[in-house]
Amino acid sequence: MSGIKKAGVLGATGSVGQRFILLLSKHPEFKIHALGASSRSSGKKYSDAVQWKQQDILPESASNIIVEECKPDGNFKDCDVVFSGLDSDVAGEIEKNFVESGLVVISNAKNYRREPNVPLVVPIVNPEHINLVENKVKSELAKGNEKPGFLICISNCSTAGLVAPLKPLVDKFGPIDALTAVTLQAISGAGFSPGVSGMDILDNIVPFISGEEDKLEWETKKILGGINSNGTEFEPISDDKMKVSAQCNRVPVIDGHTECISLRFANRPPPSVEEVKKCLREYVCDASKLGCHSAPKQTIHVLEQQDRPQPRLDRERDNGYGVSVGRIRQDSLLDFKMVVLSHNTIIGAAGSGILIAEILKAKNLI
Amino acid sequence: MSGIKKAGVLGATGSVGQRFILLLSKHPEFKIHALGASSRSSGKKYSDAVQWKQQDILPESASNIIVEECKPDGNFKDCDVVFSGLDSDVAGEIEKNFVESGLVVISNAKNYRREPNVPLVVPIVNPEHINLVENKVKSELAKGNEKPGFLICISNCSTAGLVAPLKPLVDKFGPIDALTAVTLQAISGAGFSPGVSGMDILDNIVPFISGEEDKLEWETKKILGGINSNGTEFEPISDDKMKVSAQCNRVPVIDGHTECISLRFANRPPPSVEEVKKCLREYVCDASKLGCHSAPKQTIHVLEQQDRPQPRLDRERDNGYGVSVGRIRQDSLLDFKMVVLSHNTIIGAAGSGILIAEILKAKNLI
Amino acid sequence: MSGIKKAGVLGATGSVGQRFILLLSKHPEFKIHALGASSRSSGKKYSDAVQWKQQDILPESASNIIVEECKPDGNFKDCDVVFSGLDSDVAGEIEKNFVESGLVVISNAKNYRREPNVPLVVPIVNPEHINLVENKVKSELAKGNEKPGFLICISNCSTAGLVAPLKPLVDKFGPIDALTAVTLQAISGAGFSPGVSGMDILDNIVPFISGEEDKLEWETKKILGGINSNGTEFEPISDDKMKVSAQCNRVPVIDGHTECISLRFANRPPPSVEEVKKCLREYVCDASKLGCHSAPKQTIHVLEQQDRPQPRLDRERDNGYGVSVGRIRQDSLLDFKMVVLSHNTIIGAAGSGILIAEILKAKNLI
Amino acid sequence: MSGIKKAGVLGATGSVGQRFILLLSKHPEFKIHALGASSRSSGKKYSDAVQWKQQDILPESASNIIVEECKPDGNFKDCDVVFSGLDSDVAGEIEKNFVESGLVVISNAKNYRREPNVPLVVPIVNPEHINLVENKVKSELAKGNEKPGFLICISNCSTAGLVAPLKPLVDKFGPIDALTAVTLQAISGAGFSPGVSGMDILDNIVPFISGEEDKLEWETKKILGGINSNGTEFEPISDDKMKVSAQCNRVPVIDGHTECISLRFANRPPPSVEEVKKCLREYVCDASKLGCHSAPKQTIHVLEQQDRPQPRLDRERDNGYGVSVGRIRQDSLLDFKMVVLSHNTIIGAAGSGILIAEILKAKNLI
Repeated sequence: MSGIKKAGVLGATGSVGQRFILLLSKHPEFKIHALGASSRSSGKKYSDAVQWKQQDILPESASNIIVEECKPDGNFKDCDVVFSGLDSDVAGEIEKNFVESGLVVISNAKNYRREPNVPLVVPIVNPEHINLVENKVKSELAKGNEKPGFLICISNCSTAGLVAPLKPLVDKFGPIDALTAVTLQAISGAGFSPGVSGMDILDNIVPFISGEEDKLEWETKKILGGINSNGTEFEPISDDKMKVSAQCNRVPVIDGHTECISLRFANRPPPSVEEVKKCLREYVCDASKLGCHSAPKQTIHVLEQQDRPQPRLDRERDNGYGVSVGRIRQDSLLDFKMVVLSHNTIIGAAGSGILIAEILKAKNLI
Repeated sequence: MSGIKKAGVLGATGSVGQRFILLLSKHPEFKIHALGASSRSSGKKYSDAVQWKQQDILPESASNIIVEECKPDGNFKDCDVVFSGLDSDVAGEIEKNFVESGLVVISNAKNYRREPNVPLVVPIVNPEHINLVENKVKSELAKGNEKPGFLICISNCSTAGLVAPLKPLVDKFGPIDALTAVTLQAISGAGFSPGVSGMDILDNIVPFISGEEDKLEWETKKILGGINSNGTEFEPISDDKMKVSAQCNRVPVIDGHTECISLRFANRPPPSVEEVKKCLREYVCDASKLGCHSAPKQTIHVLEQQDRPQPRLDRERDNGYGVSVGRIRQDSLLDFKMVVLSHNTIIGAAGSGILIAEILKAKNLI
Repeated sequence: MSGIKKAGVLGATGSVGQRFILLLSKHPEFKIHALGASSRSSGKKYSDAVQWKQQDILPESASNIIVEECKPDGNFKDCDVVFSGLDSDVAGEIEKNFVESGLVVISNAKNYRREPNVPLVVPIVNPEHINLVENKVKSELAKGNEKPGFLICISNCSTAGLVAPLKPLVDKFGPIDALTAVTLQAISGAGFSPGVSGMDILDNIVPFISGEEDKLEWETKKILGGINSNGTEFEPISDDKMKVSAQCNRVPVIDGHTECISLRFANRPPPSVEEVKKCLREYVCDASKLGCHSAPKQTIHVLEQQDRPQPRLDRERDNGYGVSVGRIRQDSLLDFKMVVLSHNTIIGAAGSGILIAEILKAKNLI
Repeated sequence: MSGIKKAGVLGATGSVGQRFILLLSKHPEFKIHALGASSRSSGKKYSDAVQWKQQDILPESASNIIVEECKPDGNFKDCDVVFSGLDSDVAGEIEKNFVESGLVVISNAKNYRREPNVPLVVPIVNPEHINLVENKVKSELAKGNEKPGFLICISNCSTAGLVAPLKPLVDKFGPIDALTAVTLQAISGAGFSPGVSGMDILDNIVPFISGEEDKLEWETKKILGGINSNGTEFEPISDDKMKVSAQCNRVPVIDGHTECISLRFANRPPPSVEEVKKCLREYVCDASKLGCHSAPKQTIHVLEQQDRPQPRLDRERDNGYGVSVGRIRQDSLLDFKMVVLSHNTIIGAAGSGILIAEILKAKNLI
């Protein structure tokens, strides 16, 4: 269970797939072993199949790999872990096939996020949700069965940034019973083709992202929620225990989601501003404790300058795995207001997938 | 009290001053009579003094006027109304001098907005606040005194957009006791020099505008508030009756402030979404009823498309005097969420000043 | 041949089609009579078929029109003039059918621009090229035949801006034998869907527009060229008489193409900078002389400020029908350098079509 | 002459100074020893004096240094090399004082670039121009004198990108006698305060940068030129041997200058497109041969995709020390057209300064 792990990437030509490949190509613990895409691309060299749109050049370790169809055979069969950047319209069936074939899939697609027995994981927030599959794997192995395949879902990009500061606060000060979040989301989250049109976003903002508000409201409750007493299913926080209200906007920013949030603790009196800041500053995520390669040195960066965080200046903290929080202050309606910034394609998407895989490796699950 | 009125502009070379001049130059009821600026500009032809930065070319009616110092003599002495686009660091003293000299000043500066006896007016919202000065003028005239000078303040730009939909809602459904507003504000509001630096706003947002949140929270309570029983002072809504929480951001948009708001009515049960929409659609502001030249045909545009309003597409409604409201929907925390868009340099600044002057003319106050 | 003319629009739901409809809806001489689009849209009310993306709201005069297929029957049969905003992949066949059915078509598509007997017209530059079809019409009518259909092509957007200042210079100072043009083109020229992706144009420029350099180089020679001695075919300037070299870039600007050009006259000595400016300032295009409704009051705006023209500030001159030229100065390699700015969707596309139709009406050709 | 060198930075709080500090803080061969700024900052800790605006956080190695005035004493006295990011209005006097005090100054200011005995160096292009000061140093040391101070100027940002591909072409195919360059320059080149205003650059381009065209035309001739026969003065190429024509524009891009160039060789026949590409690809700059730490692995990246280079995607090649060239094709007027992209704050400013210092160290000049 040690050494370099073989990684596959589904949806390899898409924008999330390209990010997986870029991160894997520089990673000391993974090796790109299989790339899957639609039948339009399969059979071609990756460099011929892809319209590469990253700031780093196409990694040599990927460019000559022959793209396969997204089936759990061929090179995928030998993969220790498969990262899925598939669109949701095809992810459902393909990921199911892969898991049933005994493969470990880490998916950025939304299809299975709400399944009660599938972990929805932001690796700097709730890696303990992986315990559910860990238990299942141990149990099967104990029965003498083969190691089963399993699926872990990466959260929605705007959810990841939001829950990062909430977790340590809830751990320390108890439940949050009301939360509002207005997001200013970067366009890279929408991919390239078509993605967000230039005509829609230059000198403009779009105050709507399809399905986003519902995802943000629902996923937050699962990620901050618990597991049932049998250890078999997740139990999201109920709507009456935690009211979450989201308003999502697309803004002319390349990378980095900014979120203006306000929140109220259930316990009275609430902590002071200084206690909130201290709690966030001192938070060390489990991925860091496990020594994971990509884990941020500082999980939450608490900024004191009054005009920060800003996406262009702060999104790259800890290679995009750190989250920045600024303007922490009291709120006249709830308890606190603050601004949260996270890198939507790193901690909000592909990067989270990589860090989840590092945690799986640290736990000998791959 | 009829015919073309003589208008003066203070701070004529600045960005607000340029807007006043542009709007006046096309106006059938006003004529530019005096332009004031700092001693650096005074004595020069306006076209030589100004670095004109508007999309329309410098109006001929202004270009040859000799700029004066900001003193209540010279051509200013004969002005029926004086519009002030002065910076707040000099507006206090100058505007005071003008009013004490018997002039009528409509100011965009923040200096006197909180004075208990100075109307703070968004002309499509609370023109009835002008009654306070009207009473004073009548009272002085009744005593046989000369018509006194007076000051009317234009609200902060983000406040103007916010209160536009609130007014008809409060009139119809009673008090709002909780309100949150997260703003995405255009850069034109910050002027040109220095204004917002390109390095700060390209591929970026800035989650802070100095003093803005406080202005938005406070001014809303004065504008939606009443007048004391003597009719001599304004009585803003108290903090315990209405909680307002603002978070203000600068975004890469030229013109048009977008605000994501949520609100709760004091009365239970609250109206339905359809009742809210109907109320906003049917609202006709007093300026329209008075037949004012610049008054919007439709005060509030209720948009049904799920991704509107958008600043680039919707800011010019009714020449920037109309406010657009979209995405009206129920909120899980308060009662309703919606997105409000207003043109920050028209209804949020110079344009409001012009429309206030039209109301003064209609009321024979100038 | 007088009164209000009936206008049809082909490709009515696309970005050029929307612009045609917007301009026609405000036009005193035209009435929208027929709208054509693909079978996906035909049969629907225009307001249901279109995803309207203009700053002005969808005109009432268009919203209830039932969209037809692009066939020369139905309401199109009665149209005095048909404007085509069709994509080039379908424009060829459809426009041919319309002309053969006796209709007058003004097309923004590139398909027939290089046909020797089809006028390629920038209405502020070479309306005399319309003579060729005028002669043909007169000749057919003289023979006792029915008035024939004919086609007039609108030039490429970047060509229109370029040739505007060249025409008066060539008329006055003789042929230009060398010309370079580096363009900085707005994204509206590429339409909405997909158009230019936000990821491609935010914090970026794209130094390539497919086919654009060739169009700009070739069309310039036809527009500035003559007609053969029979009056039946156009004779573009030959490559050896005029060398044109273009480099085309897409930049993050909504509307307005900026072109940095340099040129050399064949005649020695060349004029002075002042003579060039005077020539451009004094140019009055024929459309203005004919009194056409949309013709610019000032065809070429010569700007003296050293940092102008700028697209955001100068693109709306004469409602987008005027062209701005600045920084006219001597060049160390050729004779002169200058910066040309034109509104790509007005004089560079739909607006030119409307002005061509006005000229046709003035000449009793519709 | 080995080991870690002590570096000073003049103009440390400005945008170029911040870049010097950032690059030095990560450099294995330099140590920040002295920071100089105006009297407003001197005496303060650097972290208190600076408004840090870089994507990387303020390096710890700089934050506690006490800022000094820009005088050649204090800590500056011991510096092996001093980098100047001073504004040109103060650079003249200060840099002169430093050199006269025996210090080695590498300056980004324009003041002394045209001095006949001061090397103007783009380190990937003409490091051999350093020979002139090397000879002087050796000569003084041979006389038994102290090692003299000297100054090396960094070129203008848009010049650096331009000359990078020209140098290998001239070395291989002989002189270029005609050159045009239209630049699309990023805003970071203008600094922060005021820099380029957001109102001037959003949805806009500015076709003018003060002094830039002259710099680009003149500096190119010095950098590609030679040294007189005495080895004491530089001899720029004369205007009649090489005509250079520049047109400079500011565009809404954060980093990376794009230049559309065309050129003609004096020798006939010119090389083929393939020979040009091969020559550029094979070019290895002397800094690379010397093994300098920051020297690019690949000096010129020749791109074959028709829509590249693009600033957002290609500016970071070789950490900003590599230059990208694309769209190499024949020109109808001169011989070749191509698009050149370079990182204006790295190879076009502070980065060049660092690489020049590395060359000086490799040559034992510091």
